[in-house]
Amino acid sequence: VSGPFTVPALHAAYAAGLSPEAVIDEALRRLDAADDDGIFLHVESRAALMAAVASLGPFDPAAKPLWGIPFAVKDNIDVGDRTTTAACPAYAYRAERDAFCVAALRAAGAILIGKTNLDQFATGLVGVRTPFPAPRNAVDPALAPGGSSSGSAVAVSRGIVAFALGTDTAGSGRVPAAYNNIVGLKPTLGAISSTGVVPACRSLDTVSVLALTVDDAYRAYRVAARPDPADAYSRNFATSPLSGPPPAFRIGIPDAASREFFGDADQERSFLDALRLVETLGGDLVEIDFAPFYETAQMLYEGPWVAERFVVLEEMLATQPEAVHPVTRAIIEKGRDMSAADLFRGIYRLKALERITASATASLDALCVPTVPTFYTVADIAADPVGTNARLGTYTNFVNLLDMCGIAVPTGPRADGRPGSITLLARADRDAAIAALAREIHALSAPTLGATGAPLPQAAALPFGPAEDEIELAVVG
Amino acid sequence: VSGPFTVPALHAAYAAGLSPEAVIDEALRRLDAADDDGIFLHVESRAALMAAVASLGPFDPAAKPLWGIPFAVKDNIDVGDRTTTAACPAYAYRAERDAFCVAALRAAGAILIGKTNLDQFATGLVGVRTPFPAPRNAVDPALAPGGSSSGSAVAVSRGIVAFALGTDTAGSGRVPAAYNNIVGLKPTLGAISSTGVVPACRSLDTVSVLALTVDDAYRAYRVAARPDPADAYSRNFATSPLSGPPPAFRIGIPDAASREFFGDADQERSFLDALRLVETLGGDLVEIDFAPFYETAQMLYEGPWVAERFVVLEEMLATQPEAVHPVTRAIIEKGRDMSAADLFRGIYRLKALERITASATASLDALCVPTVPTFYTVADIAADPVGTNARLGTYTNFVNLLDMCGIAVPTGPRADGRPGSITLLARADRDAAIAALAREIHALSAPTLGATGAPLPQAAALPFGPAEDEIELAVVG
Repeated sequence: VSGPFTVPALHAAYAAGLSPEAVIDEALRRLDAADDDGIFLHVESRAALMAAVASLGPFDPAAKPLWGIPFAVKDNIDVGDRTTTAACPAYAYRAERDAFCVAALRAAGAILIGKTNLDQFATGLVGVRTPFPAPRNAVDPALAPGGSSSGSAVAVSRGIVAFALGTDTAGSGRVPAAYNNIVGLKPTLGAISSTGVVPACRSLDTVSVLALTVDDAYRAYRVAARPDPADAYSRNFATSPLSGPPPAFRIGIPDAASREFFGDADQERSFLDALRLVETLGGDLVEIDFAPFYETAQMLYEGPWVAERFVVLEEMLATQPEAVHPVTRAIIEKGRDMSAADLFRGIYRLKALERITASATASLDALCVPTVPTFYTVADIAADPVGTNARLGTYTNFVNLLDMCGIAVPTGPRADGRPGSITLLARADRDAAIAALAREIHALSAPTLGATGAPLPQAAALPFGPAEDEIELAVVG
Repeated sequence: VSGPFTVPALHAAYAAGLSPEAVIDEALRRLDAADDDGIFLHVESRAALMAAVASLGPFDPAAKPLWGIPFAVKDNIDVGDRTTTAACPAYAYRAERDAFCVAALRAAGAILIGKTNLDQFATGLVGVRTPFPAPRNAVDPALAPGGSSSGSAVAVSRGIVAFALGTDTAGSGRVPAAYNNIVGLKPTLGAISSTGVVPACRSLDTVSVLALTVDDAYRAYRVAARPDPADAYSRNFATSPLSGPPPAFRIGIPDAASREFFGDADQERSFLDALRLVETLGGDLVEIDFAPFYETAQMLYEGPWVAERFVVLEEMLATQPEAVHPVTRAIIEKGRDMSAADLFRGIYRLKALERITASATASLDALCVPTVPTFYTVADIAADPVGTNARLGTYTNFVNLLDMCGIAVPTGPRADGRPGSITLLARADRDAAIAALAREIHALSAPTLGATGAPLPQAAALPFGPAEDEIELAVVG
């Protein structure tokens, strides 16, 4: 087990006789080699891991599509009989049971390695807003790890786990993916249940999946995405298997006037190069004005949706405000003074922006944006914790407010060696379509996997159209 | 033109040579005979009416399905070059153009007679919260007219117009229908554009239609219901023509423990009699617990949605609070102190209640409830303006919060002679289905029309299933 942990590689090895115990030991060895106490807030004991492996039963990837696959869980997601901290020790509680999605993944054979660090309460895109040591960026330790799913992204990028759960309200699953050269799949809101997940902005939260490849991210997503009657925000989407991309498609991109890189010419070049790949795949690029998307984005941290974060912390801010990270506290406390009238005005404006953006994108198959506009170092963020964070959300903050799905995919190194990444976005329930496209872009860019240095393995070509286990439905009404 | 104004009767008379001028004069004569200054806040001049008639062109009911049909508009809906007051003189403004729906009705040949009185800002179900003289109930002057679409309901009940537009947020289109023995069609939210309508609770408002018969209400609804790109809350529903009811259907009713008549045995008896009619038509009655519906209802006036009304009046309450009706002011001012956090908590609870009620009604074609639990006199309301109003909304307040459509239909006199009325409710976009059922219930009850004393005309039987001008769509995906 020397190569990166991907599901196809591990399952091929298991089929050839490798023991999952050996994979677990290798995962622990890689964790040790990473020499970074900031990645995990809790690691399962070797005894617990071996017990989990022992309960797997014989290798059966049909019945258990994640059989023997090591994974990690962001520490705002419950694991039964473990502490959930949301990176706030004062908030910590012992979870009675697995979150709905964790239970589904474990039932499918995935082996939980541990719980990962995050921007406290999943509020932040930087990865350093934690009272614990922040994880180091896996690609370049000078860079911020990206957040809020910082530990999950670093654990995947370093090859410690094959995939990890994050969450994503404002970009928490996509920004750290870009910063660590991995795939970040942000499902349509409600596709994965939030039962057992600490809310950030409850109406806008989703669990997300971080992985080295699109195939692995999508495989874990399909296992985790199932309707949950106990979560009022859960929706019932039929997740189809991945297919190939359509022969031709229309992709919206920000027009020149509304593209924003904050002076980072390498990032602009990287994005333009990625667009050439999209064209190579048959994509017709359509420039659109992103001003309405940016206006939407601003409502998340500068408008009444901040009050949604305040709902979660109201009691703690009243009783022990010093327990909350000072940057996080300063942001969330603004939610206290927002009135219901402010929120209704925000809801009306959002409704209008939904209409405007839906109209602008009606003829498009997807949007393509840079995942991040630029890179910030840990030092940059220390110098301006709020401004850097706000700029990082340029291409991510609006997505959940507009009920879109997204997937961030590496596109190879920029001129300066930092990882390139674009994000495909589409309307609700188009997760499979953008994953199919992201898979092709990834293959064509062929970057190394995360920080492992290993090449992207060649994946099987998939035909366009419904896959074998799909049933065509005829609806006559 | 001696009988009630219904579309079939007027169109038959027009086809036989009657002039629309004669109908307009008869409408003005009936208004004069009503001797009630509280019905209309503005009546078109005879010269303006005759000019409108002159511009109709030759009688052509196919091109203009409302050719020569007199109608009225609640005075929170704009008519071009006329004043909109919302029953608040200090709020009054001259409208530049017709509301989107009024323009559609006039383009279809309807003749606007005038603008009707209402509970100020459409806040109330009683019809007496107006600084103008309140309209008298058309059936019994001791009774409240019902509101907030009080003038529209009375104008229809007295036969002055064939139909009238109301609005309906909490029951404003259904309660006055029940109080005046007429039909009140409350469309699915967004089916009729709100462009040019003074908001009450903008996210929960709809224009509604009051008429003597289901056929007439539904005809006007079909003309008015069309998508409006300028209204972010507008939705695109394909309104189908009325068909007959299905041979068998399942109707949910409040179980005995959750039925509420506030001691009014006549109303209970009237409701039970109406349920027998539903069974006669093939309806299978299913008792359900209405507690979650009532919990939903309470959020409208006792929860954070009050702040939505405050948004509309914030400026006026700051600058000239005395211009607002004192009862209305006391209610709406509570919205000032509601926080965005309160509203988010309300939104979460509503989301849970949506789930609970959807699950309880999933196997049902519709719900059937009393439109009102009881009757209040003008004196009752003067003695307890808030309590009576709250009780009147028992079976109406929850409907728009749960995104249901509804239609109130007379079921004949109660033991004491007061008008019986039931309301059918269904999930969004089932307007045609419940109208089809309401039409049969109305025919079987055969009450007199409004306060006209005239019998319900026999309407043609309609076959169950898609009507002639519908195209069956085959969707294969």
